Amino acid sequence: MGLVVQKYGGSSVADAEGIKRVAKRIVDAKKNGHQVVVVVSAMGDTTDELIDLAEQVSPIPAGREFDMLLTAGERISMALLAMAIKNLGHEAQSFTGSQAGVITDSVHNKARIIDVTPGRIRTALDEGNIAIVAGFQGVSQDKKDITTLGRGGSDTTAVALAAALDAEVCEIYTDVDGVFTADPRVVTKAQKIDWISFEDMLELAASGSKVLLHRCVEYARRYNIPIHVRSSFSGLRGTWVSNEPQGDQQVEHAIISGVAHDVSEAKVTVVGVPDKPGEAAAIFRAIADAEINIDMIVQNVSAATTALTDISFTLPKAEGRKAIDALEKAKAAVGFESLRYDDQIGKISLVGAGMKTNPGVTASFFEALSDAGVNIELISTSEIRISVVTRADDVNEAVRAVHTAFGLDSDSDEAVVYGGTGR
Amino acid sequence: MGLVVQKYGGSSVADAEGIKRVAKRIVDAKKNGHQVVVVVSAMGDTTDELIDLAEQVSPIPAGREFDMLLTAGERISMALLAMAIKNLGHEAQSFTGSQAGVITDSVHNKARIIDVTPGRIRTALDEGNIAIVAGFQGVSQDKKDITTLGRGGSDTTAVALAAALDAEVCEIYTDVDGVFTADPRVVTKAQKIDWISFEDMLELAASGSKVLLHRCVEYARRYNIPIHVRSSFSGLRGTWVSNEPQGDQQVEHAIISGVAHDVSEAKVTVVGVPDKPGEAAAIFRAIADAEINIDMIVQNVSAATTALTDISFTLPKAEGRKAIDALEKAKAAVGFESLRYDDQIGKISLVGAGMKTNPGVTASFFEALSDAGVNIELISTSEIRISVVTRADDVNEAVRAVHTAFGLDSDSDEAVVYGGTGR
Repeated sequence: MGLVVQKYGGSSVADAEGIKRVAKRIVDAKKNGHQVVVVVSAMGDTTDELIDLAEQVSPIPAGREFDMLLTAGERISMALLAMAIKNLGHEAQSFTGSQAGVITDSVHNKARIIDVTPGRIRTALDEGNIAIVAGFQGVSQDKKDITTLGRGGSDTTAVALAAALDAEVCEIYTDVDGVFTADPRVVTKAQKIDWISFEDMLELAASGSKVLLHRCVEYARRYNIPIHVRSSFSGLRGTWVSNEPQGDQQVEHAIISGVAHDVSEAKVTVVGVPDKPGEAAAIFRAIADAEINIDMIVQNVSAATTALTDISFTLPKAEGRKAIDALEKAKAAVGFESLRYDDQIGKISLVGAGMKTNPGVTASFFEALSDAGVNIELISTSEIRISVVTRADDVNEAVRAVHTAFGLDSDSDEAVVYGGTGR
Repeated sequence: MGLVVQKYGGSSVADAEGIKRVAKRIVDAKKNGHQVVVVVSAMGDTTDELIDLAEQVSPIPAGREFDMLLTAGERISMALLAMAIKNLGHEAQSFTGSQAGVITDSVHNKARIIDVTPGRIRTALDEGNIAIVAGFQGVSQDKKDITTLGRGGSDTTAVALAAALDAEVCEIYTDVDGVFTADPRVVTKAQKIDWISFEDMLELAASGSKVLLHRCVEYARRYNIPIHVRSSFSGLRGTWVSNEPQGDQQVEHAIISGVAHDVSEAKVTVVGVPDKPGEAAAIFRAIADAEINIDMIVQNVSAATTALTDISFTLPKAEGRKAIDALEKAKAAVGFESLRYDDQIGKISLVGAGMKTNPGVTASFFEALSDAGVNIELISTSEIRISVVTRADDVNEAVRAVHTAFGLDSDSDEAVVYGGTGR
């Protein structure tokens, strides 16, 4: 039996009862002969309450102090969890990100892990302890300041520790049973996926699936750490994410892993761009200088008569205003005609490595959308993904139609509760 | 203008409004040309809420984890305070006890400071920052674990930092206007003391005055750091505690500094103790082995006919059960007849260095009690203090009578709000 890293999100430790339930689960893993390292998020709404307090004292909270504030949340949950485990008769020690050796860069509120030196964790394990580590936080290499890792940071902490400690698996406990073939709130017949490759999981995460964040899966793939996403409530087997399926892990959906959707984006169209070299570069340099992350980019061939083209891209709605401002400033230099902004869009993505060798997938996808009366506004593809942009109102219907068309529907109608993973 | 250490208790930073008010006060000190180091307690009831959570997950919380939990409280208040100061246009950085160099022993929940190495605070000050430091916490020298300093620990943090940084004053901001000649909740005519010596303040603290804790005053005396106790609400000048009065600090009450009282103690009488060497030692060894702190000890001469004596001592009510158990176990070895336990007692203490050279003080004290019809059960004296034990019901009347008899009553009847100092 080897070393297991378990991560519990905020909804799993929302109150004293939750903490006690999680403690039992951890002790069970220890009793089964594992060395256990636990990464824990802040309890329930703690983080939101702290953010609310910060906004009351300062409209624009400072990065360093904001991180100092937020990290109080995990400090509370990890200490309580260690106490609850001791109360069950097992030894446990809690460690802050800094004590656990999570070294980051100095970008407050969204720091990146640059090294993990888990010497104290090793010692605690060697002495027979269960080690509890604060998720979401680290210490900056240069200034020794407390940093936080941004949204989904606790998952990244867990995977990074699993890699540094050479764990056999990183278990991500959450409030859903695993990764599903579609969002079960939209598709009641969505099925839990038994196994999925890192590549497909990365595409799903990039396309709107919220169970695991892109950054965490990327880290796991780089260090080849299998992730097991499962419910802290049911205790059922969840979804394994790894390079290759192991043992009895079933690969039910060889061609298509799942259908993801995302209604958090808006579309910007730059109209009347001169069709000559350097134009696209000028547009996206303006966007990059404003530190805006964009998603899809689509450019059609230009109309022969005008030698002008349109370039569309999608981006988070929250960045919309900033993007328009940046482009308006660059208008003279770039020389486009006008801008169009549309935040009533949705994106539907079909993900699966099997589509590489199955030429009919794209056609079937478009046929399913057409049969459902859904109009396609933009198309973008990668080797293992097809995404389309539609009206936001059409998204749910489109997801259901595609899910059915690719045979992903389960036989049962049982509803599944589905939510986020905390941070 | 030199360096000032300011300490704010939990009631001063109970909510966002309190934090903003405190931030203004800090910025004012900075504008006046001081280098400012601020020590802050947890907000309002935060600590009690955390203790409550701990009790929900584990009946006997473990020391190390309990400290990890509690220190989340100051982390929240210090980060918010730093943000509020930045919002006023001044630079501030917050530091945990560990970051501030507060090095302690390893006794969790009541650690003692053994060294202060405030290198990062110095750097922050030299760079023009206001430094905000978490009170009540440190890091253990041997294991590098987070520790807490016990009740009143933030005051001790402030004085220890003031000593290490060679501050010109340590200002303790609280919810009362200073140290009073008696508890204003009992004596409406109690007066604020303008200046008091370390020695008298130590005796007051030991006798039940809650404004400053004994440990903090002791630390300040050892390093000769003047303390200024004042209100964070009124901004009025408060009480200076130092070796000698400076400038315009008035010494109104040359003979008597104040009257303290304490109803938190109980009295144990060991009846029929053989009057021979080693008996008292055996009794108090049994008490010491049970780790019980005792206060007064009184032994009368033995009755000539029996060669038996009675020994009485007082101790915190919370330790009563433990003391009785320890003594019952030692009964055969010590050879006393019986034990009496009484928790309906109160202690009144008169404190003032002037009594050394004023022989009438003791007589006047007893006359005042007699005139008020208060019976004296035990008497104990030090060079600058007289304490008596009476019935608990008589305490308030006794305090008022003594306060009047020694001319401490103010001319005004204005009521004063009086409370604790947080932790």
